[in-house]
Amino acid sequence: MEHHFTPTRYHTTLGPHPPVLRVGDGDTLVTTTVDAWGVDHRREQVTPRSNPQTGPFYVEGAEPGDTLAVDLEEIRPNRAYGFCYSAVAPNVVDPDYVRQLPPALVAEWRVEAKKGTATLVGPESKLGQLVIPLEPMLGCFGVAAKGGQAISTATSAEHGGNMDYRGFVAGTTVYFPVFEPGALFFLGDGHAVQGDGEIVGTGIEISMDVRVTLRVLKGKSIGWPRGENDEWIFTVGNARPLDQATQHATTEMLRWLQQDYGLDGLGANLLLSQCVRYELGNIFDPAYTMVCKVDKGLLSGR
Amino acid sequence: MEHHFTPTRYHTTLGPHPPVLRVGDGDTLVTTTVDAWGVDHRREQVTPRSNPQTGPFYVEGAEPGDTLAVDLEEIRPNRAYGFCYSAVAPNVVDPDYVRQLPPALVAEWRVEAKKGTATLVGPESKLGQLVIPLEPMLGCFGVAAKGGQAISTATSAEHGGNMDYRGFVAGTTVYFPVFEPGALFFLGDGHAVQGDGEIVGTGIEISMDVRVTLRVLKGKSIGWPRGENDEWIFTVGNARPLDQATQHATTEMLRWLQQDYGLDGLGANLLLSQCVRYELGNIFDPAYTMVCKVDKGLLSGR
Amino acid sequence: MEHHFTPTRYHTTLGPHPPVLRVGDGDTLVTTTVDAWGVDHRREQVTPRSNPQTGPFYVEGAEPGDTLAVDLEEIRPNRAYGFCYSAVAPNVVDPDYVRQLPPALVAEWRVEAKKGTATLVGPESKLGQLVIPLEPMLGCFGVAAKGGQAISTATSAEHGGNMDYRGFVAGTTVYFPVFEPGALFFLGDGHAVQGDGEIVGTGIEISMDVRVTLRVLKGKSIGWPRGENDEWIFTVGNARPLDQATQHATTEMLRWLQQDYGLDGLGANLLLSQCVRYELGNIFDPAYTMVCKVDKGLLSGR
Amino acid sequence: MEHHFTPTRYHTTLGPHPPVLRVGDGDTLVTTTVDAWGVDHRREQVTPRSNPQTGPFYVEGAEPGDTLAVDLEEIRPNRAYGFCYSAVAPNVVDPDYVRQLPPALVAEWRVEAKKGTATLVGPESKLGQLVIPLEPMLGCFGVAAKGGQAISTATSAEHGGNMDYRGFVAGTTVYFPVFEPGALFFLGDGHAVQGDGEIVGTGIEISMDVRVTLRVLKGKSIGWPRGENDEWIFTVGNARPLDQATQHATTEMLRWLQQDYGLDGLGANLLLSQCVRYELGNIFDPAYTMVCKVDKGLLSGR
Repeated sequence: MEHHFTPTRYHTTLGPHPPVLRVGDGDTLVTTTVDAWGVDHRREQVTPRSNPQTGPFYVEGAEPGDTLAVDLEEIRPNRAYGFCYSAVAPNVVDPDYVRQLPPALVAEWRVEAKKGTATLVGPESKLGQLVIPLEPMLGCFGVAAKGGQAISTATSAEHGGNMDYRGFVAGTTVYFPVFEPGALFFLGDGHAVQGDGEIVGTGIEISMDVRVTLRVLKGKSIGWPRGENDEWIFTVGNARPLDQATQHATTEMLRWLQQDYGLDGLGANLLLSQCVRYELGNIFDPAYTMVCKVDKGLLSGR
Repeated sequence: MEHHFTPTRYHTTLGPHPPVLRVGDGDTLVTTTVDAWGVDHRREQVTPRSNPQTGPFYVEGAEPGDTLAVDLEEIRPNRAYGFCYSAVAPNVVDPDYVRQLPPALVAEWRVEAKKGTATLVGPESKLGQLVIPLEPMLGCFGVAAKGGQAISTATSAEHGGNMDYRGFVAGTTVYFPVFEPGALFFLGDGHAVQGDGEIVGTGIEISMDVRVTLRVLKGKSIGWPRGENDEWIFTVGNARPLDQATQHATTEMLRWLQQDYGLDGLGANLLLSQCVRYELGNIFDPAYTMVCKVDKGLLSGR
Repeated sequence: MEHHFTPTRYHTTLGPHPPVLRVGDGDTLVTTTVDAWGVDHRREQVTPRSNPQTGPFYVEGAEPGDTLAVDLEEIRPNRAYGFCYSAVAPNVVDPDYVRQLPPALVAEWRVEAKKGTATLVGPESKLGQLVIPLEPMLGCFGVAAKGGQAISTATSAEHGGNMDYRGFVAGTTVYFPVFEPGALFFLGDGHAVQGDGEIVGTGIEISMDVRVTLRVLKGKSIGWPRGENDEWIFTVGNARPLDQATQHATTEMLRWLQQDYGLDGLGANLLLSQCVRYELGNIFDPAYTMVCKVDKGLLSGR
Repeated sequence: MEHHFTPTRYHTTLGPHPPVLRVGDGDTLVTTTVDAWGVDHRREQVTPRSNPQTGPFYVEGAEPGDTLAVDLEEIRPNRAYGFCYSAVAPNVVDPDYVRQLPPALVAEWRVEAKKGTATLVGPESKLGQLVIPLEPMLGCFGVAAKGGQAISTATSAEHGGNMDYRGFVAGTTVYFPVFEPGALFFLGDGHAVQGDGEIVGTGIEISMDVRVTLRVLKGKSIGWPRGENDEWIFTVGNARPLDQATQHATTEMLRWLQQDYGLDGLGANLLLSQCVRYELGNIFDPAYTMVCKVDKGLLSGR
């Protein structure tokens, strides 16, 4: 079944809030997200900052201990105006270089969804009118947090949240551990494009039209967000420092390979030893995000 | 000029050691490296562990404050026996998962340079005889360290050293800051293949035939190792934690873009904002390694 | 006014929960806390783990942007049974030492409040029946979290929470930033004694009789918890890694010295340069805690 | 036997340098150190920056695998001029506070060894002429580094070096692992006073008259520097981040308690659980320093 949902209120924490809609296991949801500052497709601010979330959606049958699968089917900018900050964040450069960073201005990008490009409009710099291809993604999405918490959309943890990983594009399925009845799925913070690490603290922030399908994996228990696309499976660790985010993601991948791909501990370790890949989600938010990947070609037949 | 050099002794620190050969600016060096345990192409141990280095080579004209460019022209395994450890290192998994790691055995790989593959020979596990493509690289190489230090080949810093980055393959040019007269170039620790992060503490360790060309960039001063290949320019930060390695690499890239690519501070920051890429060198050695990359296509015409 | 309050329910998050009692600015609260596992003075488990909090208490007049002052007047164990874990946590030792830690058993202590001692009852080890002086303190207390969040009692942030700092003993005044109307004060997780760092993950856990006075500092705005006793003023940073906790505490102290002690930036920096002291709160919880201290004698007359 | 040694050259790395003097096991050494900038008791610069070391002293009988005990008997400023920096280092405050730090000027202190005080002379600030008691200590000292390395006096590791710990005062015995024949003892970088963490990057830097006795503990093997005074035993971990320095120090203490104080693993863990103390050495140098302490009173009779 397909639900068309128009949000009227938003949340800046992922917690056990009253659901805005109940959907069935396997249903598809077509909705919209405002940008990180609460501004919609008409460029009107409809809710306060930051990273306001559409939802939560209650998925019938989801219980704590299950997993929620989210198929990201479409993530499409629904306006032309995008923005980002113009300076790398102080925590991403050497401490004695902070004073040499330029001011953190709001830079404007013209996003042309049909052409598939973003064009830097200003401020003026020697970079000129840079044109780059779109890679629309969701920066912050996930389920109600662990242990009855309500966690800010500024950060992330086991339940997802503000992971700001470039890989969360259409064509990806993301798995979240379920902590509350109905899972309570939230989504927001679209980026037309984002660099690795989200090092200026933003991607190209924009409102989105989104289409996702929500499925419950009953009795399937996971520790951290996982995902897959045609080529890769991946796990997501969210923590500070980056070392710990890497530990979470690596540990979760070792578990996954043993649970679902028929490997023993030795085999899982040997596979990662020479074949693992990592990608940096964000190194800006309170919790950093590291992604651990394995090529599906290495797992075929398992 | 091309020099063919057969090493007879090796070093396990990168420091101001007496040169084994003096070469001219622009000369090419054809030599060999033993594996991380000091074992050569005949599988004879010719020197103690670990990561023993061929060299140092004194490059005429290189003075402190210059940069040494190293063109990696050929890195070819010169024997069939490769090995790696079989367990992810305790510092790469969650602390409470350490007890669940398998024992760190020595696993054997059959390396077939002509076929371009490495095949896991043992120990037996449910992974079976995994076959993966070769990507031969150097794990530890660089110049004499800063400030008259002699730094262990177990670790890395501004002078390079044990960076264990998968990207140091043939076809890459690497730049090192020069700290001693003649730069004093060292090389060793070849890997037939390596995963991101070198998370078991080894790649597929093997002895190599290597061909490099050494060039002095007079008056060119850099802070951290840099590199480039046909598609990317990149900078290398070496430190713990990974957060600090990332800070070093990002700061060095901001400097490079402004020094050599005609960007002002604002332009350099805006370019990185949505276009930067990171790759994890190692997260095992005393200093971790993070690589910050920019697509050369974004810099064309500059 | 003095309120005697007997709790009947508890919270394991610090958030905008309905108050159990409204108290006036300057009122005193006499109440009890259960231990970290929800066990009360009769050794009956009355609520689930972990670190269940008594409260929240709504303090009349407290508004976001104010500061809540909490005078810790009495913290007294109200039973004889205390417990701790018997093994240093895996994240506090070298990763390759984790396998050598003993099992994390529950060790029992006999707490004699009148004698002022705790005696190790078991398990048996070569340490024998260690007897140490009591230093009763609160491990987890604070106000409703920032931004409408509900944050687990396992961790800490700007609002306080599970800081596990040995210095939170009777005779100390603690200051918290107010994020919700009424501040919403919570308290729990008493320790009869605790080592620096809470490195086994517990102090000597015990239920307590507590007496505190709550005062509103109108218009006084702070960034992180602060405190003082007869000899010291101190600031508290909560974050991971410890480096960042230290940055928060140090920055907050620089601000405090300039706001309230008549120092300019140069003077505040010079004072800390040779006179600052640090104490380690905890290095076990999700957020670590570092405390930055200045001797009041250095501030007399300011 | 007592040796009076007047240095004529200095080292800025701790490595296998030719000894300036050979002393017997148990001999006493009376010598001087220049300040961190190479300036002596007459305020003449006699050697380049930074942290130049007197030595190395070859101690007869010391072999790799032994321990060198250093009794710090006297550390006395030998001039009146001391200096420090006037700003907390950028890496010790929140990254977004860096721009608010004052400039890092050189501040002058008048050191009066007989009165036992240091008086801030300038620059002028609202702090005025602060007078504080002397606590003369050595910031950088130790033995030749591990594995044939020569390590900069800017940093520290297993061999000691630039630990900048306030506790290294007269009356303390410090133990170093021996890595080279004769141990090769170095000393320098005296501070008339220092705050915890050395957060401005200096103590009150000054030249010193020093008297130490050097003893070889044959066959005694340790992993990290250890120390003791009348009240405490302590271990020293040097690394970044502070979390890792803490892991090293804690692990070394667990080992020590089991090796020398008759405790089993369970007893050592239980003792630390409620009784451990930590002190912050430095959080400024490339490697940070954390100290793990146990009260000797708890060990009496063992």
